[in-house]
Amino acid sequence: MVRWEPDARERLGDAALELYATRGFDETTVAEIAQSVGLTERTFFRHFTDKREVVFGRQEMFQAMFTDAVATAEGGPLDIVRAAVLAGCAFFADERRDHSVLRQRVITTHPELQERELLKMAALATAIAAALRTRGIADPVATLAAESGVVVFRVAFEQWLADGETRPLSAIATEGFTQLAALARS
Amino acid sequence: MVRWEPDARERLGDAALELYATRGFDETTVAEIAQSVGLTERTFFRHFTDKREVVFGRQEMFQAMFTDAVATAEGGPLDIVRAAVLAGCAFFADERRDHSVLRQRVITTHPELQERELLKMAALATAIAAALRTRGIADPVATLAAESGVVVFRVAFEQWLADGETRPLSAIATEGFTQLAALARS
Repeated sequence: MVRWEPDARERLGDAALELYATRGFDETTVAEIAQSVGLTERTFFRHFTDKREVVFGRQEMFQAMFTDAVATAEGGPLDIVRAAVLAGCAFFADERRDHSVLRQRVITTHPELQERELLKMAALATAIAAALRTRGIADPVATLAAESGVVVFRVAFEQWLADGETRPLSAIATEGFTQLAALARS
Repeated sequence: MVRWEPDARERLGDAALELYATRGFDETTVAEIAQSVGLTERTFFRHFTDKREVVFGRQEMFQAMFTDAVATAEGGPLDIVRAAVLAGCAFFADERRDHSVLRQRVITTHPELQERELLKMAALATAIAAALRTRGIADPVATLAAESGVVVFRVAFEQWLADGETRPLSAIATEGFTQLAALARS
């Protein structure tokens, strides 16, 4: 009764990351990814435009988690950004941690993917800054607040993936904002 | 008595940017750049490895201005980073503003150069964070402080290049750190 298709994207994505991590990103073919979970190349391309999209897919959905929160949060610019970052952290539940660790390992060993990850984070900051301006917060404060928030997110994300770390991402990010405030005060 | 060579790098660089801005980066050849200042392609390649290096050259020297200051500055982590950023600002004297405006225009109209600029800034933050760790400041504070400093620098740099802006880059960056502190306090 259960059809495979509804899970196909996730299964393909997990299998692809596994192969990228063990064999290397460049060495893995789409045919191998599809085959490893009993699906066809055609099904792969119904879910992903290419091999890279497995690692970076759903950027719009990812960004929207942050920017939607900007639209409704209360407080000063950095309070709004904190709310946006915590909303983004919800994207990364603890049960996805192993998946994120694997993804990070793949990125770290491949300069082209590292660059793409940096560009993704830069695009996120640009989107948050635009959302802040929509709320009437002018530049340079909008950009400063958005970029600082993304810095906190990136640093927290790296800690979250470290060996032995057990706290949820949102707790680490919350502490990051506290550390940023302490830094700026000193 | 005056030989051309000592100025060749700067003359070639200025001519190249001028051509990139007017004709487009991809459309400009090294032969055209060299010809426009009465030099040879061979001389161009003695000073630059390729056309992109005109826009991004001397990254080590650029980074060293920041990291050398980290080694000697006093105060807390963000004080040290502020000193590093202000030392970096000294790289951009007011008489180089027109050159920087032209460079920015070339970068803005070319996605590949924009990406390279982002990577350059990411590398700068990584270098500053490493210099902070050498001074005994541990992560995540070292990375938070370094990345925040680079955010202030980037935002200040963009303001410095804006039409009608007359303040020196260091004054804009100093105000940026004040704005960051105000943000973090609120």
